[in-house]
Amino acid sequence: MKERVRSEVLRKKIMSAEKASRFIQDGMTVGTSGFTPAGYPKAVPLALAKRAKEGERLKINLITGASVGEELDGELAKAGVVERRYPYQTNGDMRNKINSGDVKFSDIHLSHMPRWIKYGFFGNIDVAVIEAVALNEDGSIVPSTSIGCSNALVEKAEKVIIEINTSQPIDLEGIHDVYDIENPPHTKPIPLTKVEEKIGVPYIKCPIEKIAAVVVTDIKDSTRDVAPIDEDSKIMAQHIVDFLVKESKEGRLPEKLLPLQSGVGSVANAILGGLKETKFEDLEIYSEVLQDSVFDLMDAGKIKFASGTSLTISPNRLEDFYKNLHKYRRNIILRPEEISNNPEIIRRLGVIAMNTAIEFDIYGNVNSTNISGSRMMNGIGGSGDFARNAYLSIFMTKSTAKGGDISSIVPFVKHVDHTEHDVHVVVTEQGLADLRGLSPRERVEKIIENCVHPKFKEHLRNYVKSAEKNCKYKHTPHDFNEAFKN
Amino acid sequence: MKERVRSEVLRKKIMSAEKASRFIQDGMTVGTSGFTPAGYPKAVPLALAKRAKEGERLKINLITGASVGEELDGELAKAGVVERRYPYQTNGDMRNKINSGDVKFSDIHLSHMPRWIKYGFFGNIDVAVIEAVALNEDGSIVPSTSIGCSNALVEKAEKVIIEINTSQPIDLEGIHDVYDIENPPHTKPIPLTKVEEKIGVPYIKCPIEKIAAVVVTDIKDSTRDVAPIDEDSKIMAQHIVDFLVKESKEGRLPEKLLPLQSGVGSVANAILGGLKETKFEDLEIYSEVLQDSVFDLMDAGKIKFASGTSLTISPNRLEDFYKNLHKYRRNIILRPEEISNNPEIIRRLGVIAMNTAIEFDIYGNVNSTNISGSRMMNGIGGSGDFARNAYLSIFMTKSTAKGGDISSIVPFVKHVDHTEHDVHVVVTEQGLADLRGLSPRERVEKIIENCVHPKFKEHLRNYVKSAEKNCKYKHTPHDFNEAFKN
Repeated sequence: MKERVRSEVLRKKIMSAEKASRFIQDGMTVGTSGFTPAGYPKAVPLALAKRAKEGERLKINLITGASVGEELDGELAKAGVVERRYPYQTNGDMRNKINSGDVKFSDIHLSHMPRWIKYGFFGNIDVAVIEAVALNEDGSIVPSTSIGCSNALVEKAEKVIIEINTSQPIDLEGIHDVYDIENPPHTKPIPLTKVEEKIGVPYIKCPIEKIAAVVVTDIKDSTRDVAPIDEDSKIMAQHIVDFLVKESKEGRLPEKLLPLQSGVGSVANAILGGLKETKFEDLEIYSEVLQDSVFDLMDAGKIKFASGTSLTISPNRLEDFYKNLHKYRRNIILRPEEISNNPEIIRRLGVIAMNTAIEFDIYGNVNSTNISGSRMMNGIGGSGDFARNAYLSIFMTKSTAKGGDISSIVPFVKHVDHTEHDVHVVVTEQGLADLRGLSPRERVEKIIENCVHPKFKEHLRNYVKSAEKNCKYKHTPHDFNEAFKN
Repeated sequence: MKERVRSEVLRKKIMSAEKASRFIQDGMTVGTSGFTPAGYPKAVPLALAKRAKEGERLKINLITGASVGEELDGELAKAGVVERRYPYQTNGDMRNKINSGDVKFSDIHLSHMPRWIKYGFFGNIDVAVIEAVALNEDGSIVPSTSIGCSNALVEKAEKVIIEINTSQPIDLEGIHDVYDIENPPHTKPIPLTKVEEKIGVPYIKCPIEKIAAVVVTDIKDSTRDVAPIDEDSKIMAQHIVDFLVKESKEGRLPEKLLPLQSGVGSVANAILGGLKETKFEDLEIYSEVLQDSVFDLMDAGKIKFASGTSLTISPNRLEDFYKNLHKYRRNIILRPEEISNNPEIIRRLGVIAMNTAIEFDIYGNVNSTNISGSRMMNGIGGSGDFARNAYLSIFMTKSTAKGGDISSIVPFVKHVDHTEHDVHVVVTEQGLADLRGLSPRERVEKIIENCVHPKFKEHLRNYVKSAEKNCKYKHTPHDFNEAFKN
């Protein structure tokens, strides 16, 4: 344990998860590490859930970097411990509690979270629970597989509980680059100008006296296996790759492309797969989550460097990843989400942003959070941070949903997360529509022609005809009596 | 003219507006200076309009910094010269042509414009027409009352036409600070950390051989008199001022506040007026448009410094302004809109953004562009640049419209320009609702309670009841059969 907990003082604070969890009491605001099911605390949340299940009244406001794993979001949701939840989640039980109205969820841009914490907009942070691979002698924290907003939470929290997770190899030390941003009016330019630059320190600063408890655990990150890439995703990815090739050829993108951001999942993986077959070399990733496909492309010699805030390796690949960590660590950096998602950096680097939509409309507005306008899926996450500030902002979705029963392109989206102003290109397996510089009515034509599934084209064309006929104004004609009929 | 056109070579290029206008031909893309009715070219557009009225086939794509005056947007719209229009406008004739479908308008964040120009997303810029107070010996341009995206246009344009406007005093020289941003992957941090810092040069760089014509004119900026502040605006402003006082008192804002951005018009003026009566001192403005009220507050010793991209002084106050220019110039800077509206800077400085909404909905989404979802008013302008990146993002509107006949707070806005993720506070003359950290259903309660006009409260409460009853999911309950009935 001396290797992991390097301070005598802190070794004395090692205690059971149950005992440590007692620092968390009813009514508190608790912030934790974690971004995707990676690097989140497990043992203390399980102890909390147990207390609640045993009858203790325990309600907390829960702040995390982004989504987290089952032991945290799942167990606390089921035990009824969560009063409020910020800023993002992907857990089935948590989602159900949000959609039943039992958990008050506020969906917030990830890049806004660290600032809001530091500005005091969430009030006091009573306790921060942070997973770490090690604690330095001065109390500073070596995070595990994600950083998220841990540094902001530690800065503001009154007490800090550390979970030393021995399933996370100590060799992760050194892949983190933690840069803290001061609040206005003292904020300085962030000196990052290249994906591979380190500008901070490899640990989270923490006054040693803030650390109230150290818990040792070996529960693994609950990452999932990567689903095989389906045919539609492959086709969509190919449309995007072809588009990037064309943009580069015509001089609107540098020959070496620009750093790529892509969301999580099948299409994101397919895009990286598709890039393997192009002449692009020395690709760079500036994103949130580094997944299997990034390392596949690194192995293929296509990716030069990847920066993110979370390392989410599937169980299948984990052993191989750790075996080759000494090699990969030269080419990856994990940063706080305040840096990975920062508008300043995304704009400066000229990131190409590729994000998934639930649906988009004929004018190019995107819904990425609420099914049927009311049912929260996961949240906006970092998609807004990237789309708004990207060199190119691409949104993709399959042209139909519910097994082909409904069109993912609609007259008017039932929730807007990305407005027409932030959407440059939309893609489905049917094709790609480049919307840059087009008037709304031109977008309609291009979207219906290129992206809509053939069986829904007529329906949408009829909507447009009726809207143009019934609407006095021809800039963005709508017929609100018809727009929401399926 | 030697004082104004300092190069012998360029003095030889002085010609009539009519002759200069011949560099502009059918099918071209033309970019001009101008931001609000300030600093836009007048003589060449009038000559263009005349040619079209005399029967010449002449259609151009028109790019400006933001809105411009009657001689440009008005005359060209009426003469049918504009095929496409980017990115913003406020002119009645141009607006009518957009809403009749005759002009293809694309509504774009102002901070995106300079980048899109430089990335080549608008294709070639054939001609840039720039109003100037002077031309330096090397061809560099001293702008007049605005900068907007002139520097990007000049950089990319094949030919440049200069309008030397002798109605604009030469003493404006030196108030500009032009900093050019290189395209990715060569972009550097913008070194601006304080509102009053100068980081560039007081002119727009331009290779002398690019300047094809110099036209001399004395047509004044068509600024308008400031409307007197109405009672509702005063009350709204007071709600905002009280809120800022409270935030500062409770430690969520520095004692000296942070730089303020406010839109144009009555409420914006009322807010600055309201701040006069507070204990706040040494206020800073980091905004787009510097209007009369800024100088009133400067005279009152309340404003230390103001940075913008446009100087829009009403005819009433203009003489006084120019008389005192030697005094004001120490406390103001005009910057390119790529800097005034830059997310990097807005976030770094911690700007408090105050923008006007057409309507907002019970969940906090804002429509600031399209009346009834279809009729374009002006465009999103810089509101998105500021709201998304602000320390605090405030939107305001009167609680009713059409003489009290309809509520400005609705179940679902008919066009979304600012999503719930970007709206911290909403204000009407009825009151203020602080939405930070609230779940959607909590926002509903607060908005109806605090902001809705009493005569529409019941209607909205009934909508919420029916939505909650009919909607299976309770995160953001909606009833789309009812949402758009008035």
